This record gives sequence, structure tokens and C-alpha cells, in this order.
Amino acid sequence: MIEFNYFNGQILTSEQTKIHVSDLAFLRGYGIFDFLRVINNKPIFIEDHLDRFENSAKLMGLPIAENRERLKEIVSELIKLNPHEILGVKLILTGGYSEDGFNQSEKSNLLVTAKPFTFNNPLLGVKLMSYEYRREIPEVKTLSYVIPIKMLPKLKEMHADDFLYFYNGLISESSRSNVFIVKNQKVITAKTGVLPGITRKYVIKACEEIFEVEERDVSLIETLNADEVFITTSNQRIVSVTQIDNQIFNGGKIGTVTKKLQELFLKVE
Amino acid sequence: MIEFNYFNGQILTSEQTKIHVSDLAFLRGYGIFDFLRVINNKPIFIEDHLDRFENSAKLMGLPIAENRERLKEIVSELIKLNPHEILGVKLILTGGYSEDGFNQSEKSNLLVTAKPFTFNNPLLGVKLMSYEYRREIPEVKTLSYVIPIKMLPKLKEMHADDFLYFYNGLISESSRSNVFIVKNQKVITAKTGVLPGITRKYVIKACEEIFEVEERDVSLIETLNADEVFITTSNQRIVSVTQIDNQIFNGGKIGTVTKKLQELFLKVE
Repeated sequence: MIEFNYFNGQILTSEQTKIHVSDLAFLRGYGIFDFLRVINNKPIFIEDHLDRFENSAKLMGLPIAENRERLKEIVSELIKLNPHEILGVKLILTGGYSEDGFNQSEKSNLLVTAKPFTFNNPLLGVKLMSYEYRREIPEVKTLSYVIPIKMLPKLKEMHADDFLYFYNGLISESSRSNVFIVKNQKVITAKTGVLPGITRKYVIKACEEIFEVEERDVSLIETLNADEVFITTSNQRIVSVTQIDNQIFNGGKIGTVTKKLQELFLKVE
Repeated sequence: MIEFNYFNGQILTSEQTKIHVSDLAFLRGYGIFDFLRVINNKPIFIEDHLDRFENSAKLMGLPIAENRERLKEIVSELIKLNPHEILGVKLILTGGYSEDGFNQSEKSNLLVTAKPFTFNNPLLGVKLMSYEYRREIPEVKTLSYVIPIKMLPKLKEMHADDFLYFYNGLISESSRSNVFIVKNQKVITAKTGVLPGITRKYVIKACEEIFEVEERDVSLIETLNADEVFITTSNQRIVSVTQIDNQIFNGGKIGTVTKKLQELFLKVE
């Protein structure tokens, strides 16, 4: 089935969606994005995602040609053009076509793509590999993923699924998700150097009903000594982490708190 | 005059040179590049640039579809198609068209562009603004320039031309050039966290004939106390730094050692 995208005011097929090589995301990695899910035509947490998208744009000095209402219309239009039960919608905003290959254009380039999408089995856990790194601008969803992509062969070699970033002994995030730990029924998530995740926000909210929850600095050692660990992402909601490096959690199975939160989260969403 | 580029085996006009948005440089900033000058049809230090380009590619796990001889032929072809006295040739290699928007393709995308180009007056100095930062993979010429581009408004506000990066008190580079200092006729350049610049290499060589030269760690304080400071780049050769923050060097004029090296360098080139 042909996929349709929005690009700078036009609707294009995926095949047609090409960008001139003077674009500053292509030349210099300068741009931001956001990603949201659409389930049965309903965009999930769209206001939160557009809040974050607009905030990322502002922090990076990138003007957005379309206002909030129009962005929502574009998403609606793409939902109609790409009829799938579950869609992943990605908004990308770049520094525009740069004349000298370094300075931003006055006009950003705005691309919105929509692709069919599936969830993994939520009961399956993932393995993380700890890695000393901090994203350059953690509060912004930039397009900079040079380090995790460069390190993918190492990840595969370690039979791990993703990274657990730490810096100065404190954990921050995984490559594309936030990290939570559970200790004695208390739910704790890293505060410093993390992207303000939308799923993270609603998991904290969901927790408040039944679990004690804390946002604070979390050390790598504390993480390895946790009862349960999970990651949160708009992509896969709440995913159990059953192993970090050589440390196995809960005998390699999803923990009870993580499972409970997965159930609670579905009601919030 | 129409510019011609090479893109994945084809010669295209600049206008035609568009890339599909699934490219991993566009989506995730994953790619490398190199830049060399061509003066009167002669590519300057091309073997050095291709050495570095191939090395960057290897370090980032990016296959190059064309071998060294073919890369040189492509540059020659672009020189013929773009007849200008001075050309800037840029080779860009990316993670290719990614199916899932994160994992590399088996095939990289290779783009070579050639644009007319002018030198600034070599006697004019520039002002740097010190900034605490270190590139994520300093030894590789990656496409990651998020920090300096984000900080450009600050640079303009300070009436500075470029950054002087430092980290843990030690200087490394400017945003797109290497840094040298001169103290008591001795020429010193930073060693840690720097791109192995081609101009840097030949300046060191040129120095050896008449000046004592050292590659070692250089502190920001030592830099501010230097007699002269200059930056080196394939783009502009040797450029005098007449001011860093509030510190003015040599009364705001190019220093004698810097000027001497500019003259020597032209003979090497």
C-alpha cells in the first residue's frame, strides 16, 4: 500500500518524498522531530507531542510554518490517507535549505510521515547494555543519533537490544526511551539529562494512584540493584528490562509492578 | 552557472540533487564528509583528504561503493563540469536509506558536490568565543554540528566569528578548524579531542623548517596568554585569531609568525 507524507505544504507519496541536499538536517544533522502513535484513527497524546515539538523547535531556533491547528489537520489528513489500525506519525523539522551549508535558512523544512506500525509483545523483556554517554541536548528531541548508531555492532555483539546511558555514575535514558526502576514497590525515574518523555509523564501520573513515585537522580549501581527496571517510549509504551549487562532482574521475567503499570497505562491512553 | 554533483553513480545538476527522506544522515545525522579545495584544476592534498574520508568511513562502519581511483576520477569529472578558478569539493557519505529509520542500510549514499569558492583576505583576523564543548567523535569528520549551529545567535551577539571549544580546561578545536598558539616563537597545537586536520598536518610540517613546533595538550589559560593564535582549515588555510573573548592578541593585528607560516604554506600547497 502506498504511503503518503506531508512535506512543506504538499502531500506526496513516500517515493516522491525527497529533499534537496542543501537541507541542514542532511548536511549538519540540524533538526528536531517527534513521534506519536495513532490507534484506530485516534492520535495518542497529540497535544503533548505537539507541545514538545513546538518547544524543541523554539529551543533550536526553528520556525514552524504551520500553527497548532494546522499541524493537527495535517495529522488527520495523513490518518485518512494511510488507513492502518496502528500508525506511527513522525514530524521532522530541519534548519531548512542552507545557502552556505552551515547557516540556517529563514524557512525550516517540515516533513510529516505516517507508517503502519506494530507493537511487540508487552510481556517480553529487553536487555540493555550500559554505556557512558549523555546526549548533547537531552531536553530536545534532536536528530542526533550518531553514537548509538555507531555502537549498534557492539550492541549486537553483546546480544543486547538497546543502551542504558550513564554519565558521572548516574543513569539518564536509553537511546530512544526513558528509564524507570522499581525498588520495594517504589517507582523511581531519572531526572537529569533526560528527554521529557510523554509516556514517562503519563506513567508517573498512572503511578500516583497506587505506587509511590519519585523523579530524581538515579545511579547506575542503584539501577543494577533494583527489583524491576522498565523503559517507556511512545513507540512501545512500557517495556520490561529483564537484563542490564550481566545483571538479570526478576529471574528474567517481567516484574509485577511493571505489569500492573502496563495495565494501568492502557486505561490512561 | 549550473553546478553539477555526483550522487550514487550519477551526475546530476544541483537542482536535481535530492535525496529520499529515509536517508540516515537526514533522519539521524549519521554520516561523514570531507572537504578539499581545487585551485586551477588541481585538487589540493587530495590523497590526504581521501585517506581521512576512507578512515572516517571505516570508523563509522560506512562502506564506500567507489574505490580510491574512482573517487579521484569523480573529483576530476566534477572539476571539468564546474569550471571555476577555485572550487570547494565536498564528499558526503551517509548510513544509506534506512528501512526502520535507525539501522544502517547495507549501501551508503555517496554525494560529491563542487561549488565555486573564494578566499577571505588572509591578513584579516577573526574573533573566537570560548565555549565549553567537545565533539562526540573528534577524530571523525561527522555531520554533527548541532551545538555550534544552535549557538550561532550567541556568537553573533558576541560579535565573534567562531567558537574556541574547550573541555576540562583544555582547548581542542574551533567549530570547523584546528587551533594553534604561538609563544616565544614556539608554535604549539592542541592534541587531544581534535580532528586530524590536513592543513594542520602541513602547517606542522612547514613549521619544522624554521620554528620549534609541539603537539600537546594546551590549556585555555595558556591560549589566552599566547603571543599569537591562528586556526587552520582546508577552507581558508591559515587564519589569524586576533581576539578570544576579551583578550586581544598582537594589538588586533596578524602576528609575524602567523604571517610567515601563511607564506610558507603557500609553497607547500
